[in-house]
Formats: sequence, structure tokens, C-alpha cells
Amino acid sequence: MKTPQAQPAPATRSADPHQRFGKPEHGWRAGLYAIIFESDTPTGRAFDLALIAAILLSVLVVVLATVQPIAAAYGDWLLIAEWCFTALFTIEYIARCLCVRRPDVYARSFFGVIDLMSILPSWLSLFIPGAHVVLGVRILRLLRIFRILKLTLYIQEYGMLGDALLASRRKIFIFLSVVMLIVFLLGTVMYVVEGPAHGYTSIPTAVYWAISTMTTVGFGDLVPKTDIGRAIASFMMLLGWGILAVPTGIISSEIAHQRGRQLWSSRTCTRCMTQGHEDTARFCKQCGEPLPI
Amino acid sequence: MKTPQAQPAPATRSADPHQRFGKPEHGWRAGLYAIIFESDTPTGRAFDLALIAAILLSVLVVVLATVQPIAAAYGDWLLIAEWCFTALFTIEYIARCLCVRRPDVYARSFFGVIDLMSILPSWLSLFIPGAHVVLGVRILRLLRIFRILKLTLYIQEYGMLGDALLASRRKIFIFLSVVMLIVFLLGTVMYVVEGPAHGYTSIPTAVYWAISTMTTVGFGDLVPKTDIGRAIASFMMLLGWGILAVPTGIISSEIAHQRGRQLWSSRTCTRCMTQGHEDTARFCKQCGEPLPI
Amino acid sequence: MKTPQAQPAPATRSADPHQRFGKPEHGWRAGLYAIIFESDTPTGRAFDLALIAAILLSVLVVVLATVQPIAAAYGDWLLIAEWCFTALFTIEYIARCLCVRRPDVYARSFFGVIDLMSILPSWLSLFIPGAHVVLGVRILRLLRIFRILKLTLYIQEYGMLGDALLASRRKIFIFLSVVMLIVFLLGTVMYVVEGPAHGYTSIPTAVYWAISTMTTVGFGDLVPKTDIGRAIASFMMLLGWGILAVPTGIISSEIAHQRGRQLWSSRTCTRCMTQGHEDTARFCKQCGEPLPI
Amino acid sequence: MKTPQAQPAPATRSADPHQRFGKPEHGWRAGLYAIIFESDTPTGRAFDLALIAAILLSVLVVVLATVQPIAAAYGDWLLIAEWCFTALFTIEYIARCLCVRRPDVYARSFFGVIDLMSILPSWLSLFIPGAHVVLGVRILRLLRIFRILKLTLYIQEYGMLGDALLASRRKIFIFLSVVMLIVFLLGTVMYVVEGPAHGYTSIPTAVYWAISTMTTVGFGDLVPKTDIGRAIASFMMLLGWGILAVPTGIISSEIAHQRGRQLWSSRTCTRCMTQGHEDTARFCKQCGEPLPI
Repeated sequence: MKTPQAQPAPATRSADPHQRFGKPEHGWRAGLYAIIFESDTPTGRAFDLALIAAILLSVLVVVLATVQPIAAAYGDWLLIAEWCFTALFTIEYIARCLCVRRPDVYARSFFGVIDLMSILPSWLSLFIPGAHVVLGVRILRLLRIFRILKLTLYIQEYGMLGDALLASRRKIFIFLSVVMLIVFLLGTVMYVVEGPAHGYTSIPTAVYWAISTMTTVGFGDLVPKTDIGRAIASFMMLLGWGILAVPTGIISSEIAHQRGRQLWSSRTCTRCMTQGHEDTARFCKQCGEPLPI
Repeated sequence: MKTPQAQPAPATRSADPHQRFGKPEHGWRAGLYAIIFESDTPTGRAFDLALIAAILLSVLVVVLATVQPIAAAYGDWLLIAEWCFTALFTIEYIARCLCVRRPDVYARSFFGVIDLMSILPSWLSLFIPGAHVVLGVRILRLLRIFRILKLTLYIQEYGMLGDALLASRRKIFIFLSVVMLIVFLLGTVMYVVEGPAHGYTSIPTAVYWAISTMTTVGFGDLVPKTDIGRAIASFMMLLGWGILAVPTGIISSEIAHQRGRQLWSSRTCTRCMTQGHEDTARFCKQCGEPLPI
Repeated sequence: MKTPQAQPAPATRSADPHQRFGKPEHGWRAGLYAIIFESDTPTGRAFDLALIAAILLSVLVVVLATVQPIAAAYGDWLLIAEWCFTALFTIEYIARCLCVRRPDVYARSFFGVIDLMSILPSWLSLFIPGAHVVLGVRILRLLRIFRILKLTLYIQEYGMLGDALLASRRKIFIFLSVVMLIVFLLGTVMYVVEGPAHGYTSIPTAVYWAISTMTTVGFGDLVPKTDIGRAIASFMMLLGWGILAVPTGIISSEIAHQRGRQLWSSRTCTRCMTQGHEDTARFCKQCGEPLPI
Repeated sequence: MKTPQAQPAPATRSADPHQRFGKPEHGWRAGLYAIIFESDTPTGRAFDLALIAAILLSVLVVVLATVQPIAAAYGDWLLIAEWCFTALFTIEYIARCLCVRRPDVYARSFFGVIDLMSILPSWLSLFIPGAHVVLGVRILRLLRIFRILKLTLYIQEYGMLGDALLASRRKIFIFLSVVMLIVFLLGTVMYVVEGPAHGYTSIPTAVYWAISTMTTVGFGDLVPKTDIGRAIASFMMLLGWGILAVPTGIISSEIAHQRGRQLWSSRTCTRCMTQGHEDTARFCKQCGEPLPI
């Protein structure tokens, strides 16, 4: 039976979502653990804020290093900054490994992998000498932008969003499969109608065009040029416009539903302490006690 | 009074939506029928899964055959795969015809036609020799992508979606007719204002542009170049933006309504006949009588 | 006080929305009036259907006459068809004027003006000889597409849509004024940032671009080329995305509200015949009589 | 218990939102204050309407001065009009400063700054001689378009809109941070996949493209040209389409919630204290007691 009572679990989780790594019982490792993994002490909160700032700055450095004029003028400074951040995150990674009781569990967890991925590219580019110009290494270095994912740890709502998506995964799968069916059929039709001469060089290309049309993005790199093609495109745009309403409707009703549950829970039964009564209810739906107004 | 009771019909339908083809009473044909048309035996489920995989793979083969580099490198393999799938689907079609009591009803049903359409193009291309390069046959071969429609059989929600669309067909017709009216009027105005010199070569072309503008697709292959044309386009974009809310609103309220009925209609008080109790209620909120579970 | 009782007015209106023109009491004019203005006799319905077909066909002729290849091949046939429709609509206009008691009221009504506008262009092009090639006349001739507005008479929901828009005109005005404010400010900023060199030749042009960006149309004829311009454009796109939700929300809640009223009205009080009770109500809200379940 | 009673505050505020500037007690300054800052006398209303007209006309002058043909033909008239408006707004600014008891509070308030900003550019362009062609001054002169912000004073709903945005700022922040995370990750991926050769010259550029794709704007100035890039773009479009539903859902449920409170909270039964009666109800739906009107 679903009981809409206050759940104590999330509070605990917010205090320390990393309990499964094992907190050491005492000594300097327990103190380090409290600073790095917990956020209910002033030092822990300061560490978290400093780490968020470091992540955002290091991502900014990666981004700026790809802008030609900036890279040309301040390339050396960016390289120095990059190595400072690499050193910082390496120290953080080692400290995290040291202060947990089960480093292997941490290393294989989601954030353990992300933490490793944010330092590995820089070290690899060092150990493969003369490889600075090689494309593979440049791509590797850009992987450091995944550091940004470390931020997700700090916003709990991301987890809830993921739960909500997981809960409606069947609806989303059905919706996407309908869209895919339409997009494949109409993409093939457009490939037949317009053909490679007008840029629709293969069915995958035509499907890419069909998706960009039905989602109302409409890049315009491919456009129908025959009258029949334009008629089909017009039909697809109107269809996509109508279908666009479906995900909106699903999520709207989901949000309205959650909000409705929040509204209902304003009154509490004086006998059994049940919450979640409707505004118009006069008796407790759990024990039959008259409700206070 | 609308009584939202559990309907036993869908359950039956899900077990065998093909009853009207007639299931043979005994013998090998009854066994074959159970495998091909029903899905409540392990063999039947395995057959269904194998068929879904075959459909997806055969569609992949059709799609890949249109990509120039892949067709050049693996053309022969794709041709072989294509003939294997044709043979497979031909056997499936013959088996389906054999094991029903009324093959004529099956052949004229929606999925009977789809099943035939997925094998016919390949056989036709064989019987019309030297026609491999003819455009008509190439188009015909692409019709095999309609095999993807066979998948719709396996997702019952498609049927419900179709029912919902059918139920609100009047609203959709009115909405589309308003959009068509606006699009024809404003398309003609733009044809007059911009004219063939700026790409609006005919009213159908201008209407195609008007649809791409009001659905917020905006390909950009046709754009207004005069100041008046841009003013009208700005008005159309804002109008389309506002109108976009209408289908969303219709479908949102439809989904919210269905959700509301599911939540509310489950139980009835035995004393005061009140409906609309929450899932978690144990007593009637109107008279305090214990509710049946 | 708003009383949500069944209103007999719409039924009458649907039978004859033209009562104010005055129906002749007897004679052939009364018979003609019944055929042309009323639709509850078989002849009246047949006349309506024939007129709808004629309007659609005449619009098709106007549209096809602008398509170069079709105009070149079948130009003469289209001209003949055009004159047939002009004759038909002229006879209709004269008949309408003849059979009402107050032709002046009809002529100045909305549909009277539309009826005149659908025949005038053709006659004018005849009386201004040698003007067939003059642009002004070509534009005039295209005005005949406004014939399509005559269709609105046959779909009563258009009137209701107009009423709903009228009812929420204050909300729409406020919403549009906010959008206009943002669009003018950001358009001017983009004119300053990008300047005429990148295509933003004047503030009106920049405002046109801002509207096409914020409504997510994005033609791509004007695009920011500087980094600051792209940053502002990114901000505008996200802003427009968020604002897009406002009209959707307004209309969604409007539709949900109307739907809610429809649901409420399923039960009727046995004493005062009031409808529109909530599902959970036990007493009539108008007279206090216990309600039937 | 939340009691949704009529709040007298807004009424007072609408009469004079500027009380904190201090209204002089008597004399010509009190009279001037009533005309300029209050709108409940006929003269005050006339002043407001004249000011709205002046603002709209002065913005029109600024806009038209940037359109090349109009500036060339009527440049002198626009300059004269501009100086008339500058004189008018200067007199208005001085009058506002004179008639309040605390001019320093007014000068530092939001509308005090806006009022100063709408006259300063013109005077500055006068005192910097020969600077008419300098870019900096041209930009400065365009700042006069911010005069349009003075209009916001007259539409109180703007304030409410701001309050609503403020109330849901946490939800908006979370939503935007998710979007930013996705946009940065996928933008970097596209920079790696497509590279500078296809126009993705830096990560900021790729992020700009990612935003234009996920918001369904799709300018088309940058488009993926490789097959992998097109696949990623297709995924992003579908993702953006789904995410688009989130702000719509949040705002829809917010509007529906506010509407619900307005409809429900109006009246309370004097016997059983039930709230939530419809506008048209005359008797309590819970106990049958006549309701107060």
C-alpha cells in the first residue's frame, strides 16, 4: 500500500550518498572522509564549493583552448592552468581512494569512473611523447569536458529527474517507436520522390531530414525541390506539429499529478496522522475519524 | 451513469486478435496456428521474437543498400541477405495462409496485405528480367520498408493511440481546417507581396512556405526579402506560435482526463455510492463507511 | 449570474443565423430564402453542399492558375472555369439580395462583403480592357481566394473559437506586449552588435530576426557571425523556448477548464433542473434538493 | 490554513506605487505630483496616455532612423522629432525630480534610471562635437530604445509575471543547468566529430549550434556533414523535442493551479465551513445550507 508519509530516507542520502564505499571509523581517514564525501561540516561545505569552482574553471579552460585567437594569444597560460587542474584532480582522486574503506567499490562506481576520466587524458598525452598533434590525443584531451558531469553529484533533483524518466520509460519507448516508424516510412518516401539529385543521397540521410522536419528544427541543408516532395514535407510538418503535443501532454499531466499529491497532503488526521486528504473530504479515508477543517 | 468497470474484452483480444480468421480445431494446422498467431506458448513467443528480429534486420538491409559506399563494398552480401529474408517471409506468408480456416479473410486483412507487400517487390524484380536499373523497380524494392509496419502488431498501444485519434477526429479536423484557411490566405498574400522574383513562384509554393513558417520549422529555402513580406512573416510566426498551443492543449487535457478516470473510477462506497476515492483511501470520504478493497 | 443551463439559442442560430436579414413571409422569395439561407430542408442542404464544392473548386482554379507549367498547358480551360464560377457566384449574390427583406443589411454584413469580393475582381478585370497584364489587376484577381472565407459560415466552431479568443484577449495582449518588448530590445542590441555588415541592415530587420529566433522558426537568412552575437542568440533561443510555454499553458488550462465544466454537468437536479454539479456533490447547489446519484 | 481572502494591498499600490518617493502635502508640488505620479484624476490619466503615446512615437523615430531609405529621405525631420522628444522627456524628468519630497530616492529607483537613460544619449551626442559619425555615439543613441521599458510601469501584470518567475526560480535553474550540461557535452562531441573543417571552429561555436538544435530553432548556418554527426544531431533533435515539454509542463501546471485557486477559494459555507464552491452555486454541496453571495 502506498502511504504518502514523510520518507526519512532522502535526508540520510543527502547527508552521505556514498555510505556503500564504507566510512572509516576513526583516525585521519575518517576526518578526510568527512571533508571529501560529507557536506554537513563547514570544512566539507567549503571543499564542495571549491571543487565546483575548480570544475567550472577547468571546463572553461578546455573550452577556451579550442577558440583559435585565444589559444594563439594565451596558449601557454591555458596549458599551465590545465596542468594545475590535472594536479588538483589527481590529488583529489588519490585522497578519495585513500580515505574510503573499499577503494575498489569507489573506483568502479559512476563518479569513480568520471573522476578517473577527468585526469587520465592529460597524463596519457604526457606519456605518449610527440603525440600532441595527433588527432586521437586531441580528442582524448577533450574528454576532460566530462568533468562537468561531476557537478551532477551536487544537484539531487537530477536523480529525481532520472527516476521520473525511468518510471515513464514505457510511454517514452512507445512514443519514440511511433515517431521512428513514421520517420522511416516518410524518409524512404522522400528518398524515392526527391532522390540523390536533390541531396537525399541515401535513406539514412532522408531519415535525418525527416527527423529535422518533424521536430520543427528545419536546418534547411536539405529541402524538397519537387512539388510532390513539398506537399509531403507540408504534411510532415503538420503531423510533427500535432505529435509534438504528445510528450508535452505526458509530462504536463505527470507534473500536474505530482503537484496534486502535494496539494492534497495539507490536512492531517488527528487519530492516525494520515496525510493526503482531498480538499472536500470530511472523514479520514484511513480510519473514518472526522477531519479538522 | 458512466460505469468505468474493467472490460474483459482487451484481455481476450491480446491473447488472439486474429480469431476472425478462424482457428482450426485440431491437427498440425491448429499447432501451427498456435505458434504463428498466438503468443501464450513458449514456442509462440519465440516465433514472435524471431520475426521481430527478422523484420528489423531486413529493414536495415534495405536502408544500407541505399548508402553508396556500403552498397559498393558489401552489395553482394546485402543481395544475399535480401533473398534470405524474402524466402523467410514467403514461407511465413504461406504458413499463415495454410493454418487459418479462412485464408481469404486473412489475405484481405490489413496485416495480410502488409505481409504480401513485403515479399512481392523482390519476386517481381526477378520476373521482370533486366529491370534492375529501371527506376520503377527500384521504387518497388523500397516498398519493402513497409515491412516495418508488421511491427505494429506487437505493440497494442498503437491500437489505443489510433482509437484516441479517432475519438478526437472532429476537433483535429476543425483545427486543421482553421490552419489551412490561414495558410492559404497568408500564402496568397505573400505570393502577391514577394512574387516569383523572390522565389515564391506559385501559390502552392507560397503555401508550402507558409506551413513551414507557421509550424516553426523554417527551412530557410524561401525567405521574405521585402520589408512588408518580413512584417507579414513576423506576424505569421507569432500567430503560429500561439496556434501551436491548441493541439498541445487538446492532447494534454485528453491525457489528463484519461489519467483522472484511471485514478478515480476504481472504487464505489457501498452505503452512499460515492465514487472517486483515492487509491490509498480505506473509508468513504463522504459518509465514513469502510470501503471495499 | 451565469447559469450553465442548456441554451436554446445556438440550435436556432444553426438553423438560420441570418434572421436579421428578414425572412419573407410567403411566396417564391420565402422558398428561395429557405433554400439559400436555411439548411434544414433537403434542398437547402443540397444547395449548401454544392456551394461548398463550388468554393473549393474555384479556389483550386485560382491556385492552379499561378503554377507556370499548368497555366501554360491548361490556361484556356482555367479561364473558362473561372468565368463559370464568376457567373455562378454572381447569380448566387443576386439571389441572396433578392430573397431577403432587407438587402442593405445583407450587403453590409460580413458575408455580404465576402460574397461581393469573390465576384468583383473578375468583373473589374473585364471592364478595364487591356489590363490583363497590369500588376494591380493580377493582385485583384488573387483576391478571389478570399472566397475560401465563405466556408467559415459552415463550421460553427469557428465562431466559438473567436469567442474564446475574445474572452482571453487581455491575457494575449499582455503576453504579446512582453514578447514585443523583449524582441525590440534584443533586436536593437543585435543591430548594435552585428551591424549592417552581417546583414542586420536596420532595426526592423533585426526585430524580424529576433522574432524568427524566439519563435524557434530560425530561417537562417540572417545569422549572427560574431561570438558576442552568437552568445546573445543562444540566450534568446533558450528564453524563447521558455516563453513558448506561456501560450500553451494559457490555452491548455482554458481547454481543461471547459472540459471540466462538461464533466460536471452530467447530473441534473430533479426539482430545479440545474445541471453542472460536481461529481462529489450530494445536494443541488441551486435549490438544496438532494441530488440523484 | 491558507485563507485566500481579497488582499487590499494591490489596490493601494495601483493607485500610487511611488509612495516611497514621498508625496508633498500641499502646494503646486502636490498638484504636479498628482498629475505625474497618480492616475486617479482625469488630468493624471490624460498625462499617462500622452506619455505612452510619446514613448511609442519616440521609439518609432529611433527605429526608422536606422532604415537607410527613410533616413536618407526624412533624416532632418527625424532629427527634429528626436530633439522634440528629448526636450519633452527632459522636462518630464525635471518635473518628476521637482515634485517628489525625496528626489534622490526617485533618481536611484528603477524608473528614475530608465528616465535618465532615455534623455542622456541625446545630450551627450551634443556635448561631444563632431562625434556624430563615431560608432560609440551611434550605439549610445540607440540606447534611447530603452525608453520602451517606461511602458512597463503601466502594465501591472508584468510585476506579477516577475513574481511568478521569482517563485519558480529554483525549478528554472535546475532545468537550465540540465540543458546546459547536455548542450556542453554534445557540443564538444560534435566539435570532435565534425571539426573545424565543417564549420565547428571551436567549442563555443559547437555549443551555439547545439542550443539552436535542441531548442528546435535550427538556423542552418552550421549543419553536420558526416553520417555520425547527422546521427548525433538526430538524437539531439528528438531529445530537445522531449525536453521542450518540461518548461511547458511546469508553466501549464502553475497556470492551472492559480486558476483553480481563483475558482475555488471564493466562498465558504457558514455552517460546515466547506470551501471550493463553484461560482454559480447557491447552496453548500456538503450540507445543503444556503451560501452567502
